Amino acid sequence: MAGGDSESPLTSPSLEQQFEKFRVQLEDSGSLLERIRAVVMEIESATRLMQASLLLVHQSKPIPQVLEKANAQINVLKDLYSKLAEVVRECPGQYYRYHGDWRSETQMVVSLLAFMHWLETGNLLLHTEAEETLGLNDSDFALDLEDYLVGICFMSNELPRYVVNQVTAGDYDCPRKVLRFLTDLHAAFRMLNLRNDFLRKKFDSMKYDLKRVEEVYYDVKIRGLATTGDSVGD
Amino acid sequence: MAGGDSESPLTSPSLEQQFEKFRVQLEDSGSLLERIRAVVMEIESATRLMQASLLLVHQSKPIPQVLEKANAQINVLKDLYSKLAEVVRECPGQYYRYHGDWRSETQMVVSLLAFMHWLETGNLLLHTEAEETLGLNDSDFALDLEDYLVGICFMSNELPRYVVNQVTAGDYDCPRKVLRFLTDLHAAFRMLNLRNDFLRKKFDSMKYDLKRVEEVYYDVKIRGLATTGDSVGD
Amino acid sequence: MAGGDSESPLTSPSLEQQFEKFRVQLEDSGSLLERIRAVVMEIESATRLMQASLLLVHQSKPIPQVLEKANAQINVLKDLYSKLAEVVRECPGQYYRYHGDWRSETQMVVSLLAFMHWLETGNLLLHTEAEETLGLNDSDFALDLEDYLVGICFMSNELPRYVVNQVTAGDYDCPRKVLRFLTDLHAAFRMLNLRNDFLRKKFDSMKYDLKRVEEVYYDVKIRGLATTGDSVGD
Amino acid sequence: MAGGDSESPLTSPSLEQQFEKFRVQLEDSGSLLERIRAVVMEIESATRLMQASLLLVHQSKPIPQVLEKANAQINVLKDLYSKLAEVVRECPGQYYRYHGDWRSETQMVVSLLAFMHWLETGNLLLHTEAEETLGLNDSDFALDLEDYLVGICFMSNELPRYVVNQVTAGDYDCPRKVLRFLTDLHAAFRMLNLRNDFLRKKFDSMKYDLKRVEEVYYDVKIRGLATTGDSVGD
Repeated sequence: MAGGDSESPLTSPSLEQQFEKFRVQLEDSGSLLERIRAVVMEIESATRLMQASLLLVHQSKPIPQVLEKANAQINVLKDLYSKLAEVVRECPGQYYRYHGDWRSETQMVVSLLAFMHWLETGNLLLHTEAEETLGLNDSDFALDLEDYLVGICFMSNELPRYVVNQVTAGDYDCPRKVLRFLTDLHAAFRMLNLRNDFLRKKFDSMKYDLKRVEEVYYDVKIRGLATTGDSVGD
Repeated sequence: MAGGDSESPLTSPSLEQQFEKFRVQLEDSGSLLERIRAVVMEIESATRLMQASLLLVHQSKPIPQVLEKANAQINVLKDLYSKLAEVVRECPGQYYRYHGDWRSETQMVVSLLAFMHWLETGNLLLHTEAEETLGLNDSDFALDLEDYLVGICFMSNELPRYVVNQVTAGDYDCPRKVLRFLTDLHAAFRMLNLRNDFLRKKFDSMKYDLKRVEEVYYDVKIRGLATTGDSVGD
Repeated sequence: MAGGDSESPLTSPSLEQQFEKFRVQLEDSGSLLERIRAVVMEIESATRLMQASLLLVHQSKPIPQVLEKANAQINVLKDLYSKLAEVVRECPGQYYRYHGDWRSETQMVVSLLAFMHWLETGNLLLHTEAEETLGLNDSDFALDLEDYLVGICFMSNELPRYVVNQVTAGDYDCPRKVLRFLTDLHAAFRMLNLRNDFLRKKFDSMKYDLKRVEEVYYDVKIRGLATTGDSVGD
Repeated sequence: MAGGDSESPLTSPSLEQQFEKFRVQLEDSGSLLERIRAVVMEIESATRLMQASLLLVHQSKPIPQVLEKANAQINVLKDLYSKLAEVVRECPGQYYRYHGDWRSETQMVVSLLAFMHWLETGNLLLHTEAEETLGLNDSDFALDLEDYLVGICFMSNELPRYVVNQVTAGDYDCPRKVLRFLTDLHAAFRMLNLRNDFLRKKFDSMKYDLKRVEEVYYDVKIRGLATTGDSVGD
């Protein structure tokens, strides 16, 4: 009877060996994933603190004061990215295997750093500068180009709100400055042939940011509130 | 007037340089992607031919004859995977960046190879054997473990149909053999802690394959059609 | 004042002329569309009658009797397609502009004709035969290839039900015949590289029809109900 | 036994012949589609360059300078449309079969050409003029009427932004001129009975463009900024 079969060792040794090896491999990659996720959760948490500080800029808190608090998180993030790079380095050539696990958090980090940089200097945080800020410049753990670009788009999404609040607080020169920055940024993006659907969609949203800032600038100009700023030249 | 602004060079040189660099990088990765996709389309086409030959097994064509035609595609696939590996090798460390583009095609290849191997030997095609068959064993372009496992699940999905058709054609010993193989395979999979959702779902479907083969075995046994096969022992 | 503007003729003559021309063109293509839709509704209605007659085959009505009633609609359909072709012929080169309006109805017509043809002859209704049946063979209003193929897939979807009902009525030789037909048809389809997503999905469903018929054939065989049919040979 | 069946040639010759013919036909139409898509990608790329030049008009760059750069792409586009027409001409009467593959790109081309034409002349680019610009006037490869109309709607969507930026830059006469043009255009569209859902939706958006331009005109008038422009008469 077939029942007799069930008492004999069913599995062939090579099959057993292979799946035992797989079991170990899957445990290993599973625990690696858990360690990655633990660091990413810390990154997310530090980013939240940074963002909370940075949002005060919409209430017209003095920029140096706002930046000081936000900057305090940069070293925390640097340490966390160094920790993340160390974990990922354990499995060489698999950066992109786990990339999805820190992708959106890193886009947010880039977005905040770029906003801070713009508040401080009026310029775009470059890709190399973002890597340097996060301590990734000498690392094999690089900042993915598309993550950087998405982060910049996220920063752009923040600018219309900033302009509105600045004008409310009486800074009538802000729309002109933001408009100039955003126009340049939009033109630069237009040079790129974006095949990544998510990135292309985010870039499309930049056009609405631009339009909104143009509208605010228009409001300020038509009321004659922006005249002095223009005569200065810059 | 604001008009004066528009004549000054708006975009900063570093911004322009960066985006020009990005433009080139995105063109490069775009053309790489196109080359990958071209090879993957050839893989898909060779797989279709292999599958067409292999499906004749359901019409009770003699196995050696069926395998001979299907085997003819193995060297074609080997060449195509070597071509694919060559393209991917151009960007070291980015296997998993483009992995999604050959993932499902490779799972199908594994599934067919494993079915052919089982028809020939009655054993499971091991991961290392699959790599060897595709010429990937010495390569840095390895066969992803999860793709292998999904491919094995797909093969399992083919077995109930095979059993049904074999019994129809008068081979009453087939259900017992397939049941034994599938029971072992299912038990081996159960050792694994599957974190990949797609893989876990595919593994869940293996339970239904097992159940269906058990039912066919039951049909054969209850009608006394399978007794002689069992008394032989194995 | 600007108010004065509104009394002068605003629209330029060329703009007006163009839009007047457009208005006429859109009216024309609109009324064409309505006439197409009117014929298509008649086709749909004749198809419904044909299908109602044909469905009696599942209740084991004698095939000649079933076919006779269904055949009665063929001439109606022929006239309607001739009418449709006449309307479409009014705008040469625009078959595919309006194709979407008769597409699904035509797929259903093909599916029914092919089922009737199979019931009568045991063979597949060929593309040219379908055109001939509908009086489209000498016409510039051809039967679109993909519509024909989708129609054949729809017919395949009807076969498992037919087999089940025939076996219930005691025709134990039916599964073998249908299986043979469906296996051939499936193999023939596999030669095609289907780029049309809808068609590919419909073709995928044919695999389940095949599997279901195999299961019914299995049921019949394992109970020894099909033995005589096989010994006859064919 | 059924086993005997499997050795006979299953597929009938006419079935095989037909599907072999289909295979060739589908390969042919597949490769045609690929060639169409390759040209359309080039059209898309030239359009992107044209748009990048044209967008500088929002930064109050002198119109002749802006147009010169944008015009440079017209001949490129002309060549590409001639190439596209040549490919499509290979399968007479099937313009509308493949129309979906260049449809949205062509709507964008029309939108840019119409904006350029309006900047230059203050008038609407007529359908025949658009065809002439793209070298399609003597061709059987015409500019579909609905694509033209959608393109005009897209151009209208750009006008509020243009008006806002012009007023910001001190051109207080712009709102009146745009309003007049848009009012005429809107009135002309209203004559049409639009059955195409997409087109009707796009036309609906023109109402919002009109409203926004009216608001800007109101802003300018109520602040007494537009008086001189009107008294001149035009």
